[in-house]
Amino acid sequence: MTPETLPSWPDVAPDLIAVATGRQPAETVIRGGRVVLVQTREVLDWQIAIIQGRFAYVGPDASHCIGPDTEVIEADGRYVIPGLCDAHMHVESGMLTPAEFAAAVIPHGTTTMFADPHEIANVLGLPGVRLMHDEARGLPCSMFMQMPSCAPSAPGLETTGHEIGPDEVAEAMTWPGIVGLGEMMNFPGVIAGDPKMLAEMAATVRAGATIGGHYASPDLGPAFHGYAAGGPADDHEGTCEADAVARVRQGMRAMMRLGSAWYDVKAQITAITERGLDPRGFILCTDDCMAATLVDDGHMNRVYRHAVECGCDPLVALQMCTITTAAHFGLERELGSIAPGRRADLILTSDLRTLPVERVLALGRTVAKDGAMVVECPHLDWPAPARLTVKLAGDLTADRFEVAAPEGAQNVRARVIGVVENQAPTKALSRDLPVRDGLVEPEGDTCHIALVERHRGTGGVTNAFVSGFGYRGRMAMASTVAHDSHHMIVVGTSRADMALAANRLAEVGGGVTFWADGAERALVELPIAGLMSDRPAAEIAARAQDLMAAMRDAGCTLNNAYMQHSLLALVVIPELRISDLGLVDVRDFTLTDLIEAT
Amino acid sequence: MTPETLPSWPDVAPDLIAVATGRQPAETVIRGGRVVLVQTREVLDWQIAIIQGRFAYVGPDASHCIGPDTEVIEADGRYVIPGLCDAHMHVESGMLTPAEFAAAVIPHGTTTMFADPHEIANVLGLPGVRLMHDEARGLPCSMFMQMPSCAPSAPGLETTGHEIGPDEVAEAMTWPGIVGLGEMMNFPGVIAGDPKMLAEMAATVRAGATIGGHYASPDLGPAFHGYAAGGPADDHEGTCEADAVARVRQGMRAMMRLGSAWYDVKAQITAITERGLDPRGFILCTDDCMAATLVDDGHMNRVYRHAVECGCDPLVALQMCTITTAAHFGLERELGSIAPGRRADLILTSDLRTLPVERVLALGRTVAKDGAMVVECPHLDWPAPARLTVKLAGDLTADRFEVAAPEGAQNVRARVIGVVENQAPTKALSRDLPVRDGLVEPEGDTCHIALVERHRGTGGVTNAFVSGFGYRGRMAMASTVAHDSHHMIVVGTSRADMALAANRLAEVGGGVTFWADGAERALVELPIAGLMSDRPAAEIAARAQDLMAAMRDAGCTLNNAYMQHSLLALVVIPELRISDLGLVDVRDFTLTDLIEAT
Repeated sequence: MTPETLPSWPDVAPDLIAVATGRQPAETVIRGGRVVLVQTREVLDWQIAIIQGRFAYVGPDASHCIGPDTEVIEADGRYVIPGLCDAHMHVESGMLTPAEFAAAVIPHGTTTMFADPHEIANVLGLPGVRLMHDEARGLPCSMFMQMPSCAPSAPGLETTGHEIGPDEVAEAMTWPGIVGLGEMMNFPGVIAGDPKMLAEMAATVRAGATIGGHYASPDLGPAFHGYAAGGPADDHEGTCEADAVARVRQGMRAMMRLGSAWYDVKAQITAITERGLDPRGFILCTDDCMAATLVDDGHMNRVYRHAVECGCDPLVALQMCTITTAAHFGLERELGSIAPGRRADLILTSDLRTLPVERVLALGRTVAKDGAMVVECPHLDWPAPARLTVKLAGDLTADRFEVAAPEGAQNVRARVIGVVENQAPTKALSRDLPVRDGLVEPEGDTCHIALVERHRGTGGVTNAFVSGFGYRGRMAMASTVAHDSHHMIVVGTSRADMALAANRLAEVGGGVTFWADGAERALVELPIAGLMSDRPAAEIAARAQDLMAAMRDAGCTLNNAYMQHSLLALVVIPELRISDLGLVDVRDFTLTDLIEAT
Repeated sequence: MTPETLPSWPDVAPDLIAVATGRQPAETVIRGGRVVLVQTREVLDWQIAIIQGRFAYVGPDASHCIGPDTEVIEADGRYVIPGLCDAHMHVESGMLTPAEFAAAVIPHGTTTMFADPHEIANVLGLPGVRLMHDEARGLPCSMFMQMPSCAPSAPGLETTGHEIGPDEVAEAMTWPGIVGLGEMMNFPGVIAGDPKMLAEMAATVRAGATIGGHYASPDLGPAFHGYAAGGPADDHEGTCEADAVARVRQGMRAMMRLGSAWYDVKAQITAITERGLDPRGFILCTDDCMAATLVDDGHMNRVYRHAVECGCDPLVALQMCTITTAAHFGLERELGSIAPGRRADLILTSDLRTLPVERVLALGRTVAKDGAMVVECPHLDWPAPARLTVKLAGDLTADRFEVAAPEGAQNVRARVIGVVENQAPTKALSRDLPVRDGLVEPEGDTCHIALVERHRGTGGVTNAFVSGFGYRGRMAMASTVAHDSHHMIVVGTSRADMALAANRLAEVGGGVTFWADGAERALVELPIAGLMSDRPAAEIAARAQDLMAAMRDAGCTLNNAYMQHSLLALVVIPELRISDLGLVDVRDFTLTDLIEAT
């Protein structure tokens, strides 16, 4: 059973009623379990009968639902809890296709995802969103799509592969797997009343769907109130208790996230555990998980465990990744609890605090046991346009990364992007750099950065300098994961290696590559949109490990060096970024010169 | 502002944002109040700004929203709570049109109603529902309609004025003020998989609307589970804690009611107050309120007060008649809390336990102050077909109420409807009755009852006997409120008075009339569908008082004598009832003979 083939509750109501009343045997019965009812916050020694992918009977005794062909699962005293829901996430962050992402997280008990394919939307536009949607519709679990709202994220400061506007949003709202609008990141636009952003949100509300929010500012004054008045229904950008409380007070839901690099649950969950606010306003999510996190640590089970470790009552924590999430998206009667008519998604686990995931049922079928998938996650046949997205004008040569100095200058004062350990914002540094043979040369901890246009083969290269990676020797690293417009970011100390790295990505269709002394040291191939692999998560995690080892070997000791690399073109987060249009000062959203006026 | 003219949130988002950020003044600001946030369960010294019928700003300081023309309401330390929602009710029970019902309840703080116009549907069918819908759309508060699901309630056992089926349901789901399907009373049909009932529910779900439930049985076994598996999302028929708990465990919402004659909150609310279940599964409603209750005691404020008296935390009780109700109907972001974008419905009150309703705002406007309406509730111009619904074949004569005895009998054993004090069910009695001049004559506490067909002027009269009213002397009482098909029920000791009473209702277009010794002693005119008056509630309550006094004068001492009268044709509640098709034994849903075989 998949979202595409799953019959609706009304479609199978006759069967559900017949099973519940004992006139027809169930396909599956689970007994001997301690059933967790998130709808009441109780644990009961109950039994469950399933047919056609949905719960038919949930009650004290399902004997009357058992026929000769009924599969009876003995829970042996285990807890039976609803499958976990991730309320907001980006599949692309795992560098995996939806199918491989699902295959990685289902064994951890995630059976429902609300995914915003924002990255592929920047590369391939609406057709890219549709491909994600279509692969999701064929999976053995529920993966809903949120229609991306902001491509480009910063109009006028970057050129995306494609753009999204109100018409695209309205179109997507008619697709069966779309459940809302993806995070409305353009919060300055909302606050200013930008008609395009408001039209996207209006199209969403008129379709009865949910507007995802993204208010990445500590300002909780009138600007924040203006954002809330604009319509976003949730926000996952809060980082402290006051943020979470403020959002819920405005009638939004606070989505508290624990991603690979986001640790925002602990500081916010005190709104429930200490202030005692009604938990129905709070939800857990991951936002971004790298493949290694999925392989080594888990997914929503990791978030749940963490919430419990933070002092949250286990049943409340469970509500925040099941029924509350479902209710938020208008799906309270469709999934998120063990109750008649809902999608039969559940986990068997022997401990409610550590949550070992021993068996997972999704859409009525056993999909994973003891940490391993037992069914397939079918791949879409990704068409050529989705695989051929790294379009350069031709092979790049080292001289394309040269920065010419002003006529006669011996040295220049340059604006340099300063990477800050463990932070997404960069610093706008000012550095004196030497000039040799008419070219500005990096020195010390400063190296080259280039933004190589890759969507239209314009041949455009923006050159600048970056500081903070700690690279030594002759090296270069290139990546087609370059939030949000996903051109190609090349960082290097050697212009020759930079050319080799960039050309290599064009050759393999995208990904991340590391070069030193003229040789490739690591490669993560991401042939789909230059963002995702259709290889298993463990393989991608291993390749990413190789990549990080190569970065360390070259002197980079940052905690999240790869992520820092891939965010250098994110022209919505201060202070200094690079785009295909030039160097961007995000403090005032303007293009600025590389060489400071003297 | 009315539901018809209220702009949607997206329509006015630019204004809401502009007010929240201080770029545009609000129409109204409320300050100095203690704002109750049902979304978090907090009380905060906050301020509120309103524009275009919606909340624009809800926060600590609305000074920046005040312009020269802004109306500033000083709350003077009062609590500011969301307007109250009645989750399930029948306007017709008040014998009032929607406009007069609204005018009666708005001063009590009810600003949102979910009304099931089941009674008029039986008389006028879909066009009747549309008239209710249309009057509701023009009111100064929110009155949503639930499309009636069961007309007739008991197919084959009665003839309604019109019938409702899946096509009518699908049609109604396209109307702007329809929010769901009215109580699915045919629970045996659902449990049996009746395709018509399932098709009505399917049409509702496909429209994204909510299926109202009505499971009027103490059986919580497989039959109940079958009903839950069929799809109803709520139920208000529970009468004890186990009922409420069972419903919420099945993923339904337990609607706990306090109507004029229903007292189901106290026994069920212990599910929250003592068992500690998550209150998000519980809702308060009235179901049926007579005009006198609205005039003398209140409406949802009465239910709220009662819940608090039963030991419920005031903020939890408030959630159960605000945000939880809204969420249940998919309207969480539209109303039910004081938060940006929602309909600006609120109450100023100086005490959270007794809830004196000192000022009411609905859709952004002050609509009531100190118990009195300050705006109009416009009446629909009810068309002639809605006013001319008492269609008799011609004047009735006393002989139409004669019951012929079998040839030569001196007395007969008859099946007699036994009214039981304070209970809706009747008893199927067996009584020996004398025969005089070839006619069966009532004696002692037994009197005549007749069901007079009034929808099609067929001239049909079903005659039988009823016991338990205690009437003495020559009297008759007739009513066109005769659940559920609403023909005319005439009860009397005198056939001549019965004819006078019946003809009188035909003359005035319906209502309730009481006659004694050939003269009219009381009359409640209900010219709209024979069910409702467009006169104010106080006037109808006074007329109803007169009626009950007349009944008492004639010897009837039952607590709810009028209600007992109007339920005698309710052929879904055991044991013995009367319909246009004959005498109905509701124990086995069959038509039965008046005279027992000897």
